[in-house]
Amino acid sequence: MKKLLLTLAITSLSFINQVSAQEFSEQQIKQTAEIRNNALNSSLAYDILTSLTTEIGPRLPGSENDPLAVKWAQDKFNELGFDKVWLEPATFPAWRRYSESGMILAPSKQPLHLTALGGSISTPKQGISADIIYFETLDELIASPKNSAEGKIVFINYKMNRHIDGNGYGPAVKARSTGAVEAAKKGALAFMMRSVSTAHHRFAHTGGSHYQDGIKKIPTVAIANPDADQISRLVSLKKPVKVNINVQAENLGEGKTFNVIGQFNGTQNPDQYVLIGGHLDSWDLGTGALDDGAGVALTMAAAKYIADVKRPKRSIRVVLFAAEELGLWGAKAYAKKHKNDKHNIVAAAESDFGAGFIYGFQSSVDAKSLPVVRAIAKQLSPLNIKHIRANKSSNGPDLIPLRKLGGLAGFSLHTDGNDYFDYHHTADDTLDKVDPVKLQQNSAAYAVFAFMAADAKTTIKGK
Amino acid sequence: MKKLLLTLAITSLSFINQVSAQEFSEQQIKQTAEIRNNALNSSLAYDILTSLTTEIGPRLPGSENDPLAVKWAQDKFNELGFDKVWLEPATFPAWRRYSESGMILAPSKQPLHLTALGGSISTPKQGISADIIYFETLDELIASPKNSAEGKIVFINYKMNRHIDGNGYGPAVKARSTGAVEAAKKGALAFMMRSVSTAHHRFAHTGGSHYQDGIKKIPTVAIANPDADQISRLVSLKKPVKVNINVQAENLGEGKTFNVIGQFNGTQNPDQYVLIGGHLDSWDLGTGALDDGAGVALTMAAAKYIADVKRPKRSIRVVLFAAEELGLWGAKAYAKKHKNDKHNIVAAAESDFGAGFIYGFQSSVDAKSLPVVRAIAKQLSPLNIKHIRANKSSNGPDLIPLRKLGGLAGFSLHTDGNDYFDYHHTADDTLDKVDPVKLQQNSAAYAVFAFMAADAKTTIKGK
Ligand SMILES: [Zn+2]
Ligand SMILES: [Zn+2]
Repeated sequence: MKKLLLTLAITSLSFINQVSAQEFSEQQIKQTAEIRNNALNSSLAYDILTSLTTEIGPRLPGSENDPLAVKWAQDKFNELGFDKVWLEPATFPAWRRYSESGMILAPSKQPLHLTALGGSISTPKQGISADIIYFETLDELIASPKNSAEGKIVFINYKMNRHIDGNGYGPAVKARSTGAVEAAKKGALAFMMRSVSTAHHRFAHTGGSHYQDGIKKIPTVAIANPDADQISRLVSLKKPVKVNINVQAENLGEGKTFNVIGQFNGTQNPDQYVLIGGHLDSWDLGTGALDDGAGVALTMAAAKYIADVKRPKRSIRVVLFAAEELGLWGAKAYAKKHKNDKHNIVAAAESDFGAGFIYGFQSSVDAKSLPVVRAIAKQLSPLNIKHIRANKSSNGPDLIPLRKLGGLAGFSLHTDGNDYFDYHHTADDTLDKVDPVKLQQNSAAYAVFAFMAADAKTTIKGK
Repeated sequence: MKKLLLTLAITSLSFINQVSAQEFSEQQIKQTAEIRNNALNSSLAYDILTSLTTEIGPRLPGSENDPLAVKWAQDKFNELGFDKVWLEPATFPAWRRYSESGMILAPSKQPLHLTALGGSISTPKQGISADIIYFETLDELIASPKNSAEGKIVFINYKMNRHIDGNGYGPAVKARSTGAVEAAKKGALAFMMRSVSTAHHRFAHTGGSHYQDGIKKIPTVAIANPDADQISRLVSLKKPVKVNINVQAENLGEGKTFNVIGQFNGTQNPDQYVLIGGHLDSWDLGTGALDDGAGVALTMAAAKYIADVKRPKRSIRVVLFAAEELGLWGAKAYAKKHKNDKHNIVAAAESDFGAGFIYGFQSSVDAKSLPVVRAIAKQLSPLNIKHIRANKSSNGPDLIPLRKLGGLAGFSLHTDGNDYFDYHHTADDTLDKVDPVKLQQNSAAYAVFAFMAADAKTTIKGK
């Protein structure tokens, strides 16, 4: 049986080789297979992830760990033998969490597991104690009468859906982004929401939030799912539900940090490059293993796997973006700096959706580049990755500013995100949540993609 | 297919009836089946559990929720129509947790998720900051040289095993119980241990701990499993690992509370009774859903299921023990008070191991009582519960003081505890962790057991 499978594998491999012959030589396909196999048998990505999450841990932009993470990344690039390692500055609105706590005060006294949303102002030292006013959705809050929340703490109980592509996130995140503004418009003392979360554990999920000029700033927090369940049950008892929320935090003005970039130079067109990467920063609660230590580690390792087998024609550039969590600040700085040489990016893909198995490969490229895309897709299929034919991928938050410039040849390596939002932005986003085998498959996929895009006969172009 | 299964079920039922004919009439077996079916189709146990964990929540002995829980239990017994509802006083050493926090200070700054063990003294207001000294086991600490931990925080990294019967708990709990004493003997400033836990989440597990006269009291805490993993990795980097632990807590002297007891009186021998129950108290971190709201709810419901079908010959007594978590104080008070009428207990079983499926039924009785035990076991088999023949059960912590008096007819309904120690004594022990279907099976099992033991021809006797 083992022999038969091997025969089949060899047969299908030679078949693939023939089909790809126009774009890639047999030699190149063999190199691709070698890179893929090396990646599947290497612990490098997991070792890098272990190093980052252990030695640095949380790395909120502006925290004392932020420059340590930048130095860690430079050192790691150098240690891995990248040809060029450099920093590009970025600024961002710094914010720091000092402490936070919550209690249900009535009908009985119970701890409330909450976390301040990014940018939240502080409560008074003793916190804010008030009855809650309950809404199922942000829209229900918006539709409520003026002053409906006067003297109260608004609670929105919207539950996020679980889905492989994380499509429950968008609808749920609206309340996180603008809830404090809408609550303040109704006279609320503070805003509290069910976490943007699919978990059944008692962790609150933080994340970006916004205030609006001219609207009173009020403290804004998320509570853990079991706590939101509890509040819902208490509300259904038809007695007043009184809580205390206490947040001590500070907005610290403009902070400075860096995108950290490592490159293996191409042998024929070194100015042209394939951009892969993730974001180096994380929220302060966990150690940012899934978000986005995994993306950092697996793309750094992918570049190394390539360079160990063959330097491709074009460069492989790994960009570790800064301050993504606070609003894509590193990505914006990168797009601004590289506005005039954006045509040098022949292909780009960011890993920022955890480290579940990659199940799909999708492009957003000029029609003439599709044969190369299909050839790459064939070399991803041994990793159980399907080619998603719709030529309109849009993944990778840090690629948004580059995409806005127009003409980006963007790629998505779609990750199974079914459990991503169990851990996203919580204290529970730690190394043990990353499966080393899945991380290997991810890193192999990025290595295959980046190598082939960088070594193809045809230069890939965006739309 | 459905018809065939039904025929088989009826056939096996009549077979069982014949076998049990000596101890139980056909009528009694039909009543048993009715009780069992009602329990499997009722939401009562889950409703009671929801009420307790929502309306009261955490209920540490001596906390303001403790008397609320006592009143809740009295009211619930009365609401369910128990014939007699009463309180029996118990005292205990009161302790209260005010706040707790931890940080890894070096090699980089990271939050440390910890919880004070029950009875811990406070640290100074600013906490204790010191390098840790690492031990794999309590024995390794004990074997270390005198003064080995001078000026340091002892860390024991012992990992608990997962097992259906929780057999990893005993070996792991030794460090929790006596770690602070052994660490103090070596000159440590504080004691810190990997939680007694099988979880992969960032919750620290609290639990009872002890000081020893003549040995310096030092603060004693447990850290979450991912944090223990992190500390282990940091230690392996061979740089000093410095942490800050901060506990504010207080030992408050003797507290007073109550066992809450409800009884449905027997029709022929009301003084004789079957004792079922759980403990009403819980730790302060979670809402005590698995430990031991489930035991409280499923035994209260079981008694009600019985009474709704038929009052048995002997009484059904539900005892909700007080202050179990702080050292079986309610159980000790019960045994002391009922020392002279202990012979009235014809059978006893406590549910205090969560609400996984019950898979085994085991007795510890006089040999003459074994035919009744076998007849009960047969009526438990439709619930997929096996009769464990070894006549030496020992489950139920609150039955320990009664067992010590001698002659107790003790029973175990063995619960699948594979995931019990994922949640045990954590903030994450909340209602959503209890599966309503499993709770129904548990309650059905207790109802079958208690009804048959109370209505049997032969009076069961202990060894
Ligand atoms: Zn991210
Ligand atoms: Zn218990």
